[in-house]
Amino acid sequence: MSKANDLKAWQQKAQAQTELVLERLMPPEHIVPQTLHEAMRYVTLGGGKRLRPLLVLAAAELGQADQTAVEHAMAAVEMIHVYSLVHDDMPAMDNDSLRRGKPTCHVRYDEATALLTGDALQTLAFDVLSRPTGLPAARQLKMVATLAQASGSLGMAGGQAIDLANVGKPMNQAGLEQMHGLKTGALIRAAVALGALACPDLGDDDLQRLDGYARKLGLAFQVIDDVLDCEADTATLGKTAGKDADNDKPTYVKLMGLEPARRYAEDLVAEAVALLAPFGEKAGYLRALAEFVTARKH
Amino acid sequence: MSKANDLKAWQQKAQAQTELVLERLMPPEHIVPQTLHEAMRYVTLGGGKRLRPLLVLAAAELGQADQTAVEHAMAAVEMIHVYSLVHDDMPAMDNDSLRRGKPTCHVRYDEATALLTGDALQTLAFDVLSRPTGLPAARQLKMVATLAQASGSLGMAGGQAIDLANVGKPMNQAGLEQMHGLKTGALIRAAVALGALACPDLGDDDLQRLDGYARKLGLAFQVIDDVLDCEADTATLGKTAGKDADNDKPTYVKLMGLEPARRYAEDLVAEAVALLAPFGEKAGYLRALAEFVTARKH
Repeated sequence: MSKANDLKAWQQKAQAQTELVLERLMPPEHIVPQTLHEAMRYVTLGGGKRLRPLLVLAAAELGQADQTAVEHAMAAVEMIHVYSLVHDDMPAMDNDSLRRGKPTCHVRYDEATALLTGDALQTLAFDVLSRPTGLPAARQLKMVATLAQASGSLGMAGGQAIDLANVGKPMNQAGLEQMHGLKTGALIRAAVALGALACPDLGDDDLQRLDGYARKLGLAFQVIDDVLDCEADTATLGKTAGKDADNDKPTYVKLMGLEPARRYAEDLVAEAVALLAPFGEKAGYLRALAEFVTARKH
Repeated sequence: MSKANDLKAWQQKAQAQTELVLERLMPPEHIVPQTLHEAMRYVTLGGGKRLRPLLVLAAAELGQADQTAVEHAMAAVEMIHVYSLVHDDMPAMDNDSLRRGKPTCHVRYDEATALLTGDALQTLAFDVLSRPTGLPAARQLKMVATLAQASGSLGMAGGQAIDLANVGKPMNQAGLEQMHGLKTGALIRAAVALGALACPDLGDDDLQRLDGYARKLGLAFQVIDDVLDCEADTATLGKTAGKDADNDKPTYVKLMGLEPARRYAEDLVAEAVALLAPFGEKAGYLRALAEFVTARKH
C-alpha cells in the first residue's frame, strides 16, 4: 500500500473514531432540554475534516498515551472549534447560512438557540476534559489549562476580535500572521499539545519541539486556505481575485501573490516536518498530516 | 457590634476582595485585542451583589482553605455568572438595554463584541480555575469539573434553554423549580462546593451536607426574587400583579400567592440553616448569607 493510501485509511479510521467519541460524550437528544441537545448534536456530528482531533491522535502516537485522555482531548478540541463556528456564523458576526452543506444553527433553529448551543458546547469541552482518566491529575490539569489558554481572549476568541476590528482596514503580513496565529493557530497548537500531554512519558523538550511543528503547520494551513480560495474563485468565476480579496479582507495571496504564497506554505510544511526528525517513525501521522495540508484541494 | 452590622462589614470587605481579585485576573485593557478586554472589564468590574463569590468565601471558612484556590474560585464563578448575563441580555434572548444601571454590553459596544465578551469570559473562568494553587491536583481538577457541570446544558445553560422553550406556556411549581434549579440554582450550588473543595480537610460528607444547604438557598433566593418583584411593582405601579406576571412568565407568587411564597422562602432558609448545625461557629457567614436572602429589600 502506498504512503498516501496508508494515510487515507488512517484518516478515515480516525474521523470515524472522532464521530463515535463525540456521539458518546454528548448528551442524548431525549434528555431535557431536548432542543438544545438536538442542536448541539446537529452542529457537531456528521462530518468535517476533523483536523484538530486528528492532530491530537497523531501527536499521541509519539508516547505511551492514556487512551481515555486522548479521546477526551479529541472531543474537547473539536467542541471548542465547533462552538466558535456556531457563534461566528451568527448574524452579528459573519451571518453565514450554510456550513458543511447544511443550514447553520441559527437558520435551522433560531439565534437564541445558536447562542446557547455555542455556550454549552464550550462548557462541555471543559467538562469532558476534567473527567477521570488514567493520567496523573497534575498532567490532566495542564491539559485543561492548555485548552483554556488557547481558546480565550489571548487565543482563538482574541483572534476573532482582531479580525472584527480590522474589517476593511489594510493589514500587513505580520498583522495577518498575528491574527491567524490566534484565530486558528492557537487551537491547532493546543490540539498537538493535548495529544502529547496525554502521554506521561513525553517531557517539556518534546512539547516545545512539537509546538514549533504546530505553529508552522497552523500558519501553512491558513496560507493554503487563501491559495485554495483564490484558485476556486479563478476556476468558477473566471477571475483571479478571490472572494476574500473582493471583501477587502487581507489574504496571503493578496499580500504575496499566488505562487509565492504556495511556496511559502510548502516551505513552512518542510520546516514543520524537519522538526519531527528526532521522533523518527512514530511521527509518521504528524508528518503525513502536514504534507496533506499543502496537498489538499479543498 | 450587632450580628447584622458584623455581616454587613464582612460583606463589604468580601465584595471589595472580589473586585480586587477580578481586576487582577482579567487581562488589562492595553493588551490586544483592546476592545474585547475593555468590554470584559466593563461587564465584570464595578458592582453587583457578588452573591456567588461571597458563597465561595463563606464556605471556605469551614476548613483549612488554600487562599489562592479560594480567590480563583471566587473569580471563576463570577465570570460564568457575568458571561451568562451578557449573552442573556442580547437581542436574541431578553433584549435588555440596562444592567446594574449601565448600558448592557451589546448596547455599549455591539452584538459581535457582546458575543465574544461572553465567550471569552467563560473561557477565562476555566483558565483561572486551572492555574497553579497549593491544592492537590486531583482536588483542583474536581473544582474544574464542578464548575463545568454546573454551567453547561445540564446546568445553567440548560435552565436558560428550558426558560426559552416555555415562554408564554403555563408551568406548575415542579416545572418552575426544575427550571430555576438549573438556571440559577446550579451555579449557587457550585459556588458553595468550590469554597468547600478549596479546603482539602473537608470530606464528601461535608460536601453533601453543604449541597443540601445550597439547594435550599438557591430555591429561596428565586422565590424571594419573585416576591420582591411583585412588591416593587405593587409599590411603584399601584397594582399587585408583578412585571413577570404581566409577561405571562410563571412566578412563585403567581402560583402560591404573595404571603405563602414569602413563608415558603423563610421555611427553606430555616431548613438550609439547620443543615449547617454540625459546622458550629465556622458556618457563621453561610448562616448569615442565608438569612440575608430573605431579609433583603432589593
